[in-house]
Amino acid sequence: MADAPYKLILLRHGESEWNEKNLFTGWVDVNLTAKGEKEATRGGELLKDAGLLPDVLHTSLQKRAIRTAQLALEAADRLWIPVNRSWRLNERHYGALQGKDKAQTLAEFGEEQFMLWRRSYDTPPPALANDAEYSQFSDPRYATLPPEVRPQTECLKDVVVRMLPYWFDNIVPDLLTGRTVLIAAHGNSLRALVKHLDGISDADIAGLNIPTGIPLYYELDSDFKPVTPGGKYLDPEAAAAAIEAVKNQGKKK
Amino acid sequence: MADAPYKLILLRHGESEWNEKNLFTGWVDVNLTAKGEKEATRGGELLKDAGLLPDVLHTSLQKRAIRTAQLALEAADRLWIPVNRSWRLNERHYGALQGKDKAQTLAEFGEEQFMLWRRSYDTPPPALANDAEYSQFSDPRYATLPPEVRPQTECLKDVVVRMLPYWFDNIVPDLLTGRTVLIAAHGNSLRALVKHLDGISDADIAGLNIPTGIPLYYELDSDFKPVTPGGKYLDPEAAAAAIEAVKNQGKKK
Repeated sequence: MADAPYKLILLRHGESEWNEKNLFTGWVDVNLTAKGEKEATRGGELLKDAGLLPDVLHTSLQKRAIRTAQLALEAADRLWIPVNRSWRLNERHYGALQGKDKAQTLAEFGEEQFMLWRRSYDTPPPALANDAEYSQFSDPRYATLPPEVRPQTECLKDVVVRMLPYWFDNIVPDLLTGRTVLIAAHGNSLRALVKHLDGISDADIAGLNIPTGIPLYYELDSDFKPVTPGGKYLDPEAAAAAIEAVKNQGKKK
Repeated sequence: MADAPYKLILLRHGESEWNEKNLFTGWVDVNLTAKGEKEATRGGELLKDAGLLPDVLHTSLQKRAIRTAQLALEAADRLWIPVNRSWRLNERHYGALQGKDKAQTLAEFGEEQFMLWRRSYDTPPPALANDAEYSQFSDPRYATLPPEVRPQTECLKDVVVRMLPYWFDNIVPDLLTGRTVLIAAHGNSLRALVKHLDGISDADIAGLNIPTGIPLYYELDSDFKPVTPGGKYLDPEAAAAAIEAVKNQGKKK
């Protein structure tokens, strides 16, 4: 076992086609936009400039996180590191909201209901039927999952519950060997992890946004608690500006 | 265990920057050219059109094979499959020839010596010093390998010897589970595998060229022998034309 502090880097995927269109995405497998690709490359350059070179990568099964990792690692000249993927790092399943316009949803259901679905810890949106247009229930990438664990909707609490086993069983062992671990994932799977790491309350997690494409670096002590609470963005000014922008997403016309 | 025939797809990386410049590459980690990227994408489209969807990927530690796989899998909508990488699938180490111009080498050493280095089964080029410009001896991606297995030059026989353990221990078990396996690798690591699969003699392997970017599909019986000797290129006409072109590589001005 290596000595603490352990080195962990979180990277939220760059802008996706549906971020750009302001649609709820969830498990729908949309691609990065050209802007998202640039963000990913820039993320890798930030890693390289900081000398923070990942030794192993963990991603979701979703293209926007996988490609973000590929572009970032290419920029950092670390394309060759071992890769592990899991549905447990996927974005939160957005249930029946998947494919819906955020501004329209806000207008249709009102701000209270809208914010409850977006930010409450334990209120999932209505379930998405398995035969619905934007259901991924039958996607071959989930074929090895028993139906009872393939979600039809999720709240953030659900994401915490399904993400943590992967953290404990697959990521922590990599940290223990002294390797610098990169997790390339999604707004809500990363919020779930940060909630756990920083011990954020169910209420306070609503206020936490993680910007796209800016590596968030955590040193973790021997109990896997952050040496610096909240970690450290490799480009703090850009992170602060982006966090403001995320907050206003639902209000975009 | 699944029933034979097992499904194996071999994919040689698309044109690299040094293929284009007609330099010996070996373990030097050059990137794909724009043409090589297109070949990789086309390889993925051929897989998709044939309904031959990989369930698991094995690559080398070299960027040109890794990126070829990424582009092909993106085109086949299979970016999410599990990935395994090993130095054992790397290109043959070209020793002191790495970085040298093929036509100049031919002119300097004569056709007999040139062809011996390129195509003899058991004559490696001179060793490359660990501090030479194009040595990868100290590259971090090989840091976990004891120095005695980090090559300074290789003949094809050396590649067979270091590649086969990975075939037996890592790829065959994936085939046994019934998964369609994609190996994205290099001219010589794939020639080494094909020599083994098809039982090609040490003499005859000299005449075998594998074109870039065209998936070569093997069905394997329960003894992991090809159902059809030599396998089947997914685009046989393009493969035949490309094989001719490879034969003339050394003679390019």
